[in-house]
Amino acid sequence: MPVITIAGNEGITTEAKRKMVKKVSKIVAESYDLPTEAITVLIQSYPKENVGVGGELLSDR
Amino acid sequence: MPVITIAGNEGITTEAKRKMVKKVSKIVAESYDLPTEAITVLIQSYPKENVGVGGELLSDR
Amino acid sequence: MPVITIAGNEGITTEAKRKMVKKVSKIVAESYDLPTEAITVLIQSYPKENVGVGGELLSDR
Amino acid sequence: MPVITIAGNEGITTEAKRKMVKKVSKIVAESYDLPTEAITVLIQSYPKENVGVGGELLSDR
Amino acid sequence: MPVITIAGNEGITTEAKRKMVKKVSKIVAESYDLPTEAITVLIQSYPKENVGVGGELLSDR
Amino acid sequence: MPVITIAGNEGITTEAKRKMVKKVSKIVAESYDLPTEAITVLIQSYPKENVGVGGELLSDR
Repeated sequence: MPVITIAGNEGITTEAKRKMVKKVSKIVAESYDLPTEAITVLIQSYPKENVGVGGELLSDR
Repeated sequence: MPVITIAGNEGITTEAKRKMVKKVSKIVAESYDLPTEAITVLIQSYPKENVGVGGELLSDR
Repeated sequence: MPVITIAGNEGITTEAKRKMVKKVSKIVAESYDLPTEAITVLIQSYPKENVGVGGELLSDR
Repeated sequence: MPVITIAGNEGITTEAKRKMVKKVSKIVAESYDLPTEAITVLIQSYPKENVGVGGELLSDR
Repeated sequence: MPVITIAGNEGITTEAKRKMVKKVSKIVAESYDLPTEAITVLIQSYPKENVGVGGELLSDR
Repeated sequence: MPVITIAGNEGITTEAKRKMVKKVSKIVAESYDLPTEAITVLIQSYPKENVGVGGELLSDR
């Protein structure tokens, strides 16, 4: 705890996930005045047809 | 914002998702008195063996 | 199952929730070809200072 | 309702899911003084590269 | 990781939460063949008017 | 989209939320190669007795 869930599109690289997790964990740990070890990050990958923005599927945009 | 997450079974068609996202976004936008552009919908697809209802896996029903 | 989570701002009326739940449950039930009884809706209320859009707190907009 | 979401690593067997759902549903039903039929469990499977602990991807540990 | 989110009604006692967290953590740890220390549980409390079942608010039942 | 949910303890200041949202939104936007405007952040505040770590309530630690 804290637990950070990042719901994003499919397709980001492992290297991008690695950097994102490192940076986001550090910031959130600092914000809550906790050690980075306390932070869990869950990355959810959504295909475009499973995401709606403004009433439209992303895959239709 | 608002963000709507729909956790459902696998297997609904893209067309069903398209209609569902359009209608649900409109209703929730009206309920919060916001434009439809503000609405995000995330559809999560669960295989039956990853869902429990009444203590049983859906795949065992 | 399905389970619908609606993360929205604080402040919508009970009547607005009542109508939203009724309509959204019906649409999602139809989309998944399931009876409305199968649908669970969870409404989460967020104060504006707990929501960020475009890097800003909603309470700062 | 209640709805229990279990975000875990990929790879647990169907049998392990079956037992987990049965036991967890029973305990949570008892805790809320509700029948087990009221309980929904959603199991989310995360690949190791989609999970960060202590600022590192699980796949890098 | 794993992270367990329990979305339930308001009103269960601290003692009931204590027991539920202890038991659920043990079961899920065993299911994933992990130590209990790895388990995080998040309890979400929903007022009845923020929960819809079968298209109705729980507060209207 | 992306949508970031940060489940953390109660008690962080508005200023800490402001900075956290700004930094986290920027990093995640860069990771997904999207503009910061696309990012939504939801901050969930949990009282210690609603959080379990290692089978214990945080409020008991």
